[in-house]
Amino acid sequence: MRWSQYFLPTLKETPAEAQIASHRLMLRAGMIRQSSAGIYAWLPLGLRVLRKIENIVRAEQNAAGCIEMLMSTLQPAELWRESGRYDAYGPEMLRFTDRHEREMLYGPTNEEQITEIFRASVRSYRQLPRLLYHIQWKFRDEIRPRFGVMRGREFLMKDAYSFDLDRAGAIRAYNKMFICYLRTFEKMGLKAIPMRAETGPIGGDLSHEFVILAETGESEIAYHRDLGSFNLAQAAIDYEGDLQPMVDSFTAKYAATDSERDPVREAALGDALVTGRGIEVGHIFYFGTKYSKAMNAVVAGPDGEESAVEMGSYGIGVSRLVGAAIEAFHDDSGILWPEALAPFRVGLINLKADDAACTAGCERIYQDLLTRGCEVLYDDRPERPGVKFADMDLIGLPHQIIVGPRGLAKDLIEVKDRRTGARIEMTTEAAVAAVAG
Amino acid sequence: MRWSQYFLPTLKETPAEAQIASHRLMLRAGMIRQSSAGIYAWLPLGLRVLRKIENIVRAEQNAAGCIEMLMSTLQPAELWRESGRYDAYGPEMLRFTDRHEREMLYGPTNEEQITEIFRASVRSYRQLPRLLYHIQWKFRDEIRPRFGVMRGREFLMKDAYSFDLDRAGAIRAYNKMFICYLRTFEKMGLKAIPMRAETGPIGGDLSHEFVILAETGESEIAYHRDLGSFNLAQAAIDYEGDLQPMVDSFTAKYAATDSERDPVREAALGDALVTGRGIEVGHIFYFGTKYSKAMNAVVAGPDGEESAVEMGSYGIGVSRLVGAAIEAFHDDSGILWPEALAPFRVGLINLKADDAACTAGCERIYQDLLTRGCEVLYDDRPERPGVKFADMDLIGLPHQIIVGPRGLAKDLIEVKDRRTGARIEMTTEAAVAAVAG
Repeated sequence: MRWSQYFLPTLKETPAEAQIASHRLMLRAGMIRQSSAGIYAWLPLGLRVLRKIENIVRAEQNAAGCIEMLMSTLQPAELWRESGRYDAYGPEMLRFTDRHEREMLYGPTNEEQITEIFRASVRSYRQLPRLLYHIQWKFRDEIRPRFGVMRGREFLMKDAYSFDLDRAGAIRAYNKMFICYLRTFEKMGLKAIPMRAETGPIGGDLSHEFVILAETGESEIAYHRDLGSFNLAQAAIDYEGDLQPMVDSFTAKYAATDSERDPVREAALGDALVTGRGIEVGHIFYFGTKYSKAMNAVVAGPDGEESAVEMGSYGIGVSRLVGAAIEAFHDDSGILWPEALAPFRVGLINLKADDAACTAGCERIYQDLLTRGCEVLYDDRPERPGVKFADMDLIGLPHQIIVGPRGLAKDLIEVKDRRTGARIEMTTEAAVAAVAG
Repeated sequence: MRWSQYFLPTLKETPAEAQIASHRLMLRAGMIRQSSAGIYAWLPLGLRVLRKIENIVRAEQNAAGCIEMLMSTLQPAELWRESGRYDAYGPEMLRFTDRHEREMLYGPTNEEQITEIFRASVRSYRQLPRLLYHIQWKFRDEIRPRFGVMRGREFLMKDAYSFDLDRAGAIRAYNKMFICYLRTFEKMGLKAIPMRAETGPIGGDLSHEFVILAETGESEIAYHRDLGSFNLAQAAIDYEGDLQPMVDSFTAKYAATDSERDPVREAALGDALVTGRGIEVGHIFYFGTKYSKAMNAVVAGPDGEESAVEMGSYGIGVSRLVGAAIEAFHDDSGILWPEALAPFRVGLINLKADDAACTAGCERIYQDLLTRGCEVLYDDRPERPGVKFADMDLIGLPHQIIVGPRGLAKDLIEVKDRRTGARIEMTTEAAVAAVAG
């Protein structure tokens, strides 16, 4: 993509309303624009990151045997009356009536809707187990939306729902998602710590949240250092096998947020204790028959007896992760994208766009990178080098190629690693090979 | 995908509420489930088709130089007060207030939102032209939603917006989208006829709608037969070149809907006249400065003078196209997917799932097809052949492979073309090669 033909409105000034790094940087890097409080338009650069996250989530959900579908954003109030949550949910639920005065709502989550779909078509244990998911916009009317996409009102979430005949089956589904989540975040370049959690308004008796470390995180966390050193992204996971021992190897280790912390256990851990601040990026729940009983979602077992189906739900905050990743990876100059999430892999800077030889050289490099299938953003604007350096550091692409007329005359261009700041001079050919990946 | 592990709830009975073929078939084929009037959940099979359409639209928009972004579903009322459309839009607009009593709406279209984004960051003609688009859910509170996804309330739409310094530039953008749309529909296996249209509530003085032929279409159409025989899908289009002659070659030919029809011109066409019923699947508008003037979106020209930016908007009904394609392609047994839109390319039917040899043979074919990257749905259910034949015809995959124990013993299996109904016996190897594509 040529910057001159893109839509990438970076800002020099730091917007006054942004209190945290990710919000500031997303606005400055031209990734989002606020539409109203807690509601954002995703500009082209931001959307590319959102899609990278979405695609990693989708690939890992599919690998774990989940089946994708897509529920609507709006739901009828009557569904939530069946489960008893319509009145219980509170003012975070956006309620309204349509032109025929039917009561409706913008879905904050989908337990009721998926239970209705399930009960309408599944009658027998032979059609179990099932894991269904969708990636759809949700709305929660936060009283004080802030922190940009980290605590917005309209947000993109992946939510999966499991259906099993009995508790043992539901725990198998829970374990699949537990391991799948660790892998998913690791594929993004993020280390998520699983923490036992309260079930809150979803209900149930077993729940974990997945928290990534970031200085500006919303809660204080403490955990055994081994939880930060696992490596599942490259492991071959057999999702149909017994995952309980693997899950136990995580849950046996100490990990707690805020109020759950235990000074005695922490003291015993000594050097093995890590503390810091964390951001919740995923949450899984086993809630058994809470919704299936209320909504009469029953299946016949092998003995012909009907019983309420056992369920769980599993959420990942897709749009929140864009902000969370920036909280984890940035410096004073801008964002430091992990390769898996970078909107482009390479930024190509033409230091003298009005120099014919320099522009011809950049053009060759640009085409060469495109031919190799490399995602490259080419800054071909007629701007001063200082502006280009600052903008490229701000948007945080992992690799920069910097081309000026003097170096190019000797076939020497600079390759810069955005994370370390290291710059190396090399030939054009070597530079392209080094960054193309 | 194995049918036994999928979520594909086909229906034997025809749902009483469905009046047209696509609505009936989408419900019966387990593609959608109604959530409330005019609002549907997309079940896994339906979502696959929706994504195929979305991906074709996206690829063709990108090829024409459009840049993707993503605006929110909800918008503040004040934006629409700026353009004067808030009160003008009528009861199709879903209005509500949030918990702080701020007036909001579920976007039925995005002219105001994109104009606000544009004016906030573009100041100079040097940043023009720009073509921005997004693919997002919209809501229009139809008084009597019907015909399934063809006239739903929550629907997925691609809408693009062009920004140019002057009318000539805006017409270039319009022409790009005109040609891009013809290609887009053709890539889906659909022939869309461009027809001069009223601009309606969007405004402006130049507009075309793109209409596909289908017996159950909503309006009567008539056109010169040459309009039905173009072929742009394989052509190399230079979107930066002068497209006016190509556009003229279409617009010079007679084409009209309902009230616009001209009996004199039709009589003169003689044999060249085609009449039928049509479904609108796209609509493009040049509306000039209608929104930019009202909302003060101005750019400085080369002479430093500021002027309101020239705009157009360009819509494709992504979710509607799923229904429209079925209206165009179905028979008494079910859907007849064009290859480009088929949820899976191949349906593999195991006629005797309790026969070990038959199942082992199917398993080999299934793995072979997957290895070749072929999208295959394997009906491994313990159902009678009649049920499997009916279900497979209903969901309309283009190619079927039918495997029974007797044929398999002689290494002979049947390949059926869903559209023609032709069945050919061949060896396993030949069958896999024939359908894999």
